[in-house]
Amino acid sequence: MSERVFLNGRFLPGEQALVSANDRGFHFADGVYEVVKYYPGGPFCLEEHMERLRNSLAAVRIVYPMGVETLPVIFSRLLEENGLSGREAGVYLQITRGSHPRVHHFPEIPEPTVYACAFAFPSFVRQLTEGIGVITAEDIRWLRCDIKSVSLLANTMLYQQAVERGAGECVLVRDGLVTEATHSTVMAVRHGTVVTHPLSRLILPGITRKVVLDLCRENGIPVAEEALPAEELHAADELFLTGTGSEVMPVVAVDGHPVGHGLPGPVTRLLQNAFFRKVDSPLKFDR
Amino acid sequence: MSERVFLNGRFLPGEQALVSANDRGFHFADGVYEVVKYYPGGPFCLEEHMERLRNSLAAVRIVYPMGVETLPVIFSRLLEENGLSGREAGVYLQITRGSHPRVHHFPEIPEPTVYACAFAFPSFVRQLTEGIGVITAEDIRWLRCDIKSVSLLANTMLYQQAVERGAGECVLVRDGLVTEATHSTVMAVRHGTVVTHPLSRLILPGITRKVVLDLCRENGIPVAEEALPAEELHAADELFLTGTGSEVMPVVAVDGHPVGHGLPGPVTRLLQNAFFRKVDSPLKFDR
Repeated sequence: MSERVFLNGRFLPGEQALVSANDRGFHFADGVYEVVKYYPGGPFCLEEHMERLRNSLAAVRIVYPMGVETLPVIFSRLLEENGLSGREAGVYLQITRGSHPRVHHFPEIPEPTVYACAFAFPSFVRQLTEGIGVITAEDIRWLRCDIKSVSLLANTMLYQQAVERGAGECVLVRDGLVTEATHSTVMAVRHGTVVTHPLSRLILPGITRKVVLDLCRENGIPVAEEALPAEELHAADELFLTGTGSEVMPVVAVDGHPVGHGLPGPVTRLLQNAFFRKVDSPLKFDR
Repeated sequence: MSERVFLNGRFLPGEQALVSANDRGFHFADGVYEVVKYYPGGPFCLEEHMERLRNSLAAVRIVYPMGVETLPVIFSRLLEENGLSGREAGVYLQITRGSHPRVHHFPEIPEPTVYACAFAFPSFVRQLTEGIGVITAEDIRWLRCDIKSVSLLANTMLYQQAVERGAGECVLVRDGLVTEATHSTVMAVRHGTVVTHPLSRLILPGITRKVVLDLCRENGIPVAEEALPAEELHAADELFLTGTGSEVMPVVAVDGHPVGHGLPGPVTRLLQNAFFRKVDSPLKFDR
């Protein structure tokens, strides 16, 4: 069965989803996106994703005339048309400022391009069980990482470095401090406290980040929203990533050096289990 | 006559130039570009533009299998098919890593997307004569501005601020120092010396920048390649921008305050005239 996608009001086969070479998404990365994960029990924090989308659109001043609240209907139909209903699946949504002859400033009457597709979520059971290794690299991204924009060339270049060195993610360091990773949030456990970068222009306001910090509080785990110096990464008792795709992903090595005992730690396991319960996943780990 | 453009080996009407919604240029800003200006006497520094394109491609590791040296033939045909031969015209060229299901890392066998179009160059005679006003803003772009990538959302947002405040460009300031503008190089004249940011990761290696610095040297004007503190912008004797589109553009006001006497200065005029002679433009200004 050919993949079915959504483009500008129409559901159509993926290979027919074509955008103008004049699209500002193509010329200028002038657009924003979201990825929503659907569990068998339903979407994960759909409202929060739509709220963040509203914020991203507002930050770059793209007006989506149909209203963000109409999108979940499109997502459901995409899942259905692709035989993904009731499975672990993702929906990717991108909204750009639309097609216009190339000038830097915004068109006066923009017609946004809206594209969405659905995909079966890859299984990360092995990684969630055993943990992954990460590398570190300089955070060369722009200073508005709080906007979930498609201006992602830096992210792809940095993640590519991780892949080529056999690692699962690339943790970013700006001015000596850990910000986040190329497509996930970084959390460290230090003397029993979960430490993660505070919300600012330098990181994405992660939705899984917020959920996991709430789970920490519910489970009596202290939280410190402060930037971790890069040199403390290796000395952390535990390290993990959070994100729509990563869920709660143990990190067992940084730049080839083991974190703690080189195995997923007890706080990470507790938070993984709490997270799986919350999303009604069958996964569960021994502490 | 409908505009004719080039896409992936074919010349076709602009409205038929469609790229996949899976193009990495659309998803990730994973591509680079160039704009070449053609004067009636021929292209401006075509070899230098192709050399910079090679460098950008190498920096993001996109391999263009046809070879960059084949592109000028395409440019000439685009100018011809659009009735622009012998006129002041521009060619826009964009190469992305091509279409691929969305994953951050690079596809193993990428098929780059190549798009090019030609356009009549707008006339900036009034601005070149009278000068323009600029605003200043924080340089929020990434740290690889030496790559001419399409990851330009920051540039468009910053330039939009200038447009809305009635200015002609937005001069960028990072850590208190002037880097460049959203799509031009910034040069100041201070006690007779032309001051501009040194080549680094923070600015594009401007081709007009190099030509103008050479013209300075040929005309006995001292050059200092050093970053100008933002607070010295207002105190500069003269200010101008350089770029393919800007040529040598006098700046007569910064954030609403006049530069020098609020008129294009003598060093700027000298360099404008030298530049126009070099490109065989009929423009010439009194000193």
